[in-house]
Amino acid sequence: MGKQKDISEKLAETFQIRHVLLRQALAECLGTLILVMFGCGAVAQFVLSRGSHGTFLTVNFAFGFAATLGIVVSGQISGGHLNPAVTFTLCLLGREPWRKFPLFFFFQTLGAFVGAAIIFALYFDALWDFNQGELIVVGSNATAGIFATYPSKHLTMVNGFFDQIIGTAALIVCVLAIVDPHNNAVPRGLEPFAVGFVVLAIGLSMGFNSGYAVNPARDLGPRIFTALAGWGGEVFTANTYWFFVPICAPFLGALVGVLMYQLMIGYHLEREVQEKLKKEEEEEEEEERLKLSSIPTNEDA
Amino acid sequence: MGKQKDISEKLAETFQIRHVLLRQALAECLGTLILVMFGCGAVAQFVLSRGSHGTFLTVNFAFGFAATLGIVVSGQISGGHLNPAVTFTLCLLGREPWRKFPLFFFFQTLGAFVGAAIIFALYFDALWDFNQGELIVVGSNATAGIFATYPSKHLTMVNGFFDQIIGTAALIVCVLAIVDPHNNAVPRGLEPFAVGFVVLAIGLSMGFNSGYAVNPARDLGPRIFTALAGWGGEVFTANTYWFFVPICAPFLGALVGVLMYQLMIGYHLEREVQEKLKKEEEEEEEEERLKLSSIPTNEDA
Amino acid sequence: MGKQKDISEKLAETFQIRHVLLRQALAECLGTLILVMFGCGAVAQFVLSRGSHGTFLTVNFAFGFAATLGIVVSGQISGGHLNPAVTFTLCLLGREPWRKFPLFFFFQTLGAFVGAAIIFALYFDALWDFNQGELIVVGSNATAGIFATYPSKHLTMVNGFFDQIIGTAALIVCVLAIVDPHNNAVPRGLEPFAVGFVVLAIGLSMGFNSGYAVNPARDLGPRIFTALAGWGGEVFTANTYWFFVPICAPFLGALVGVLMYQLMIGYHLEREVQEKLKKEEEEEEEEERLKLSSIPTNEDA
Amino acid sequence: MGKQKDISEKLAETFQIRHVLLRQALAECLGTLILVMFGCGAVAQFVLSRGSHGTFLTVNFAFGFAATLGIVVSGQISGGHLNPAVTFTLCLLGREPWRKFPLFFFFQTLGAFVGAAIIFALYFDALWDFNQGELIVVGSNATAGIFATYPSKHLTMVNGFFDQIIGTAALIVCVLAIVDPHNNAVPRGLEPFAVGFVVLAIGLSMGFNSGYAVNPARDLGPRIFTALAGWGGEVFTANTYWFFVPICAPFLGALVGVLMYQLMIGYHLEREVQEKLKKEEEEEEEEERLKLSSIPTNEDA
Repeated sequence: MGKQKDISEKLAETFQIRHVLLRQALAECLGTLILVMFGCGAVAQFVLSRGSHGTFLTVNFAFGFAATLGIVVSGQISGGHLNPAVTFTLCLLGREPWRKFPLFFFFQTLGAFVGAAIIFALYFDALWDFNQGELIVVGSNATAGIFATYPSKHLTMVNGFFDQIIGTAALIVCVLAIVDPHNNAVPRGLEPFAVGFVVLAIGLSMGFNSGYAVNPARDLGPRIFTALAGWGGEVFTANTYWFFVPICAPFLGALVGVLMYQLMIGYHLEREVQEKLKKEEEEEEEEERLKLSSIPTNEDA
Repeated sequence: MGKQKDISEKLAETFQIRHVLLRQALAECLGTLILVMFGCGAVAQFVLSRGSHGTFLTVNFAFGFAATLGIVVSGQISGGHLNPAVTFTLCLLGREPWRKFPLFFFFQTLGAFVGAAIIFALYFDALWDFNQGELIVVGSNATAGIFATYPSKHLTMVNGFFDQIIGTAALIVCVLAIVDPHNNAVPRGLEPFAVGFVVLAIGLSMGFNSGYAVNPARDLGPRIFTALAGWGGEVFTANTYWFFVPICAPFLGALVGVLMYQLMIGYHLEREVQEKLKKEEEEEEEEERLKLSSIPTNEDA
Repeated sequence: MGKQKDISEKLAETFQIRHVLLRQALAECLGTLILVMFGCGAVAQFVLSRGSHGTFLTVNFAFGFAATLGIVVSGQISGGHLNPAVTFTLCLLGREPWRKFPLFFFFQTLGAFVGAAIIFALYFDALWDFNQGELIVVGSNATAGIFATYPSKHLTMVNGFFDQIIGTAALIVCVLAIVDPHNNAVPRGLEPFAVGFVVLAIGLSMGFNSGYAVNPARDLGPRIFTALAGWGGEVFTANTYWFFVPICAPFLGALVGVLMYQLMIGYHLEREVQEKLKKEEEEEEEEERLKLSSIPTNEDA
Repeated sequence: MGKQKDISEKLAETFQIRHVLLRQALAECLGTLILVMFGCGAVAQFVLSRGSHGTFLTVNFAFGFAATLGIVVSGQISGGHLNPAVTFTLCLLGREPWRKFPLFFFFQTLGAFVGAAIIFALYFDALWDFNQGELIVVGSNATAGIFATYPSKHLTMVNGFFDQIIGTAALIVCVLAIVDPHNNAVPRGLEPFAVGFVVLAIGLSMGFNSGYAVNPARDLGPRIFTALAGWGGEVFTANTYWFFVPICAPFLGALVGVLMYQLMIGYHLEREVQEKLKKEEEEEEEEERLKLSSIPTNEDA
C-alpha cells in the first residue's frame, strides 16, 4: 500500500496542471468526449445493427444521458458547458470572460474528435461488416451520419438554418432557467439531470430535420474525424456545404435564446429579487427607527 | 466588457415590466410555448417521419418533459400552471385570485399559439414534402392532428367528453397532492419533475381516445393557428365541432379532481396538521404550567 | 371569495373523518385507484389500439409511474402501501399493527375495483369497437387481460406460483431497503420514485409469464369488476382457477422477501447502528471519566 | 405481537454476522444477485417472447435500474460495488484495502450465479417452450446469451477485447466522478441513480458488439450456471474461448479509466481543494495577525 500511494502521489505531482484555465479546458475536453462517445455511440449502434439494437428514441436517450454524465464529470471544474454555444451565451451575459470562448471551443471540438475516434475504434469491425469496408457519406447505406449530422432529403438550406437556430434557442432558454442564480428552478446538484432532459426533449421533438446538432463542437469534431478516417472531403461538401450550418446557426440561436429568456423571465426575476431586497431593507430601517425611538441606547439589540 | 454590460443594463431597464401580473402572464406564455413546442414538435416528428423518428411513446415522453421544462422556466415567476384548468383549480381553492384566470387563460393560449407556429416553421419543408403541400385535417394523411387533438374513429361525443373529464381529474388529483402545502409529497424543487411524470402517465394510459389534451390552452392555441395557417375552418367543424370538448371538459374535470382530492386526502391532512399543532400547543402549555409551578420566577426560561 | 371560502369550510367540516384508521384506508383506496387507473389504462391503450399507441414497455413505464404517483398522493396519510403484500410485510416486521391488514386489503381492493371501472368507462367505445361488443376472456382477441392478469400459454401452475413468489420477493427486498429506517438508501422524499423504479424493473424482467401482478388487490379488484361488467364468471375459472395464484402467492413471496432482506442486510444494519451507538456511548463515558478525573467540579461541562 | 417480536429477535441473534467483512461480502452478493436477476431477466423476457415483451432498449433500462436498485440495497453496508472492476478501481486508488478484492469478487460472482439461477427457474417453462427443451449456446435460437454475453458475428477477438476495455473505462470514469469525495458531482443519496444512468448510457451506445458485460462477476457467475444447468462446456469454448474477454478486459479498462479520470479531473480537483484550503488558512492567519496587532490580549476571540 505504501508503494501504491507513492506512485499515486508521484503521478499527481507530475501531471497536475498549474494553469487554472488549462485545467478547465481539459475538463471541457473530457466532458465533450463523454457526450460524443455515448451519443454517437448510440447512433452507431442504431445504424450498424440496422435497427435491431437501437431506434431513434435510444439515440435521444443516449444524447440526453450523455449530456448529463458529461456535465457530472466536468461540472465542478469548468461548469460543464460541453457546447461552444453555451460558452458563448455565458460570455454574452458576462458570467464568463470572453477569453475562455476560443479556448473552450477548441478543447470541446478536440474532445468531440476523440470521442468520435473511440466510437470508430469500438465499432471498427461492425463498420467494416456493414458496407464491406466502404465508408459512404450520403445515401441509404451512409455511415458518416453516425458521427456528424446531415440534413434529411426534404430539408432546404433556409429551413435547416432556421432548424438549428430554433433548436439552440430552445436549449439556451431552458439552460438559462436552470442555471439562473436568481431562479431556483432546480435543486442544487440536479442541474446536470435537468439539462439532460432538455437535450432529450429537443431530440424527441426537433430531431427529424437534421439530427439536432445544436452544438458546433459536437458536429465539427466528429466531422473532421470522419474526413481523416476515410470518408474524405465529401463530409464537408455534401448537401451544398451543409457542415457550415451546425457551426454558425447555433450561435445565432444562442443570441435568440438569451434575448427570449432575459426579456420574458430573466430581467423580471432580477427586478423581483431587487424589489424584495429593497422592501426588506426598508422594513429593517423602519424597525430600527422604531426601536431607536423607543429604546434610545441599547447595545445588545 | 464595459460596453457589453451597458447594453445589458439598458435592455433590462427598457424592457422590465413594472406590473407584477403582466410579468406572471408573460411567464405563463413562455412556459406554455415550451410545452407546446416540445410536445407538438414530437407529434410532428412522429407523423411527418411516418414513424421512423418517433412513436406514440416518444410523444408521451416529450409532453411529459415539456411540462417539466415549461414549469422549470416559468415556475419562479408565475407558479408554472401552463394550463387554464390548473389556474381554475387554484382559483377554486382560493390559492390564486380569480382575476388571474382570464389573463392566464389568454396568455397560455397565446403561448400555445406561438409554440405551434414555431413547430410549423421548423417543419415547413417536411410538412410540404409529406402531402406535396396539401394541408389535410381529417383522414389517413391528416396533419392537423400535429397541433390540435382530434378524436379516434371509435369515439362518440359522450365518451370523448368523459375522456377529457377523467384525464383532467387525474391530472388535478396528482398535481394537488404534489403542491399541497400540508402534504410534503415531493421534495422542494422536484415538483416540476413530478408533474412531468403525471403528464407522462396520462399519455401512456389515456392517450388512445383523443390524444389527452386535458388543457384548453394547449388545444385551442394551436387549433387557431392551424385555422389561420392554411388548414382552414375545418379544424373547428371537424368531428361535429369536437374542438369544443377539450375546451370545456377540462374545467369540469378540474372540479371533479378538486372534490376527489379534497374529500379523500386534502381535508384530512389539514385536520391532521391542525390536530398535531393543537397537541403540541397543549403539551407546551402543560410543560409551562409544570415549570411555573416548580420554578415560580425564572426570566431566562 | 367570502362565499367560496364558506362553501369550502362547510365541505371540510361535513366530510372530515374523525377516525384516523378510516382516513388511512381511504388514502390507500385512492392510491390503489391511481395505480390501477394508470396501469390498466396503459394495458387498455396497448391492447385496444392493437399496438399503435402502446407496447409492453409503455405498460411497464405506466405501472412504474402509477406506483410512484399513487404513493405520492397517499403516502403522507397511510404510508402508501397500495399492495396487501406490502401491508402484510410491515405487519410481519411489527411496523404496522395487524388490525390494519384486513382493512387496508379491503380498501386497496376497492380502489383497484373503482380504477378498473374508470378505465372501462374511459375506453367503453374502444372496447366495443375492438370486438364488436363481445367481451372475451381467453384467446387472441381477449380483453379481460386489460384488467386482471392471465398466464401465458407456456406457463404451468407450479411455475406460475413460483413466478409470483419471486416477483413479490424481489419487490419486497427492494422496498424494505428503500424504507428501512436504519438504511439511508434513498434521500427523504424520493422513496415514491425509487419504488416506481422497482415496479418498472420487475415489469421489464418478470412480465412475460403472467403480467407481474405481485399485488393481490391490483389483481382481485379489477377481476371482480370484469366478472360484473360482462366478462362473466370465466374470469375466475379460466386457466384452471388461475385467479387464486396472484392472491395467495404474493404473501408467500413477501415472507421470502422479508427473510432474504433481514438475513442478508437488515439485521446486520441494525447491529451496525447499535455497535456505533455503543461505541459513541463508551467514548462519551470515557471522555466524561477523563474530564471528571481532571476537573472534579465543573458545572458548565 | 409479543411472540412475533420474540421470533424476530431470536432470528436476529442467531443470524447476525459478527465479522464485518463477511457482512459486506454478503451485501455485495445480494446486490449483484439483484443486478443479474433484473438484468438477465429482461434479456430472458426479450429473447423468450421473441420480441413481443421486450426490445434491446428494455434490456438497457433493466440493467440500468437493476444497477441502481442493487446499489440501493447493498450500498449502506458494502458501498455497492456489484462489479469486481469497481472494487479493483477503489483498491487501486487506496480507498479500499486489497484484501477485499478476492472476497468481493467471489461473492459478487456467487450473487450473479444465484441471480441467473432464479431467472432460469422463473422462466423454466418459457425456456422449455422456446426450443422444445433444447438448450442451445450459439446460433439463431440460442438461449445461453440470456445469461452470459457472447460476441456478435462481426466481432473479432481484438475488437472485442478493446470493446470491453472502452466500456469499462467509460463506466469507471463516470463512477469515479460520481463518488469522488472532492467532486460534489451528484447530491448525496442520488449516487445509485446516477450510476444507473451510466449503465443505461453504456448499454444504449456500446451494446451492439458483445452485450456490454463490463463486469467480470456479472458474466462469469451466470456462465458457470449455464454450464451446470444443461448448456454444457460449450459456454466456455464458444467463439474461441470468448468467456476470457469479459473476465480480463474489464480490469484493464478499469486501469485506463482511473488514469483518464485522475489525469484529467481527479488530481486537479484535489489541487483546487488544497489551494482553496491553503488560501483560507492564509487569510485566517492574516486576520489573526491583524487582530493580534490591534487587540494584544483577547481570550474570547
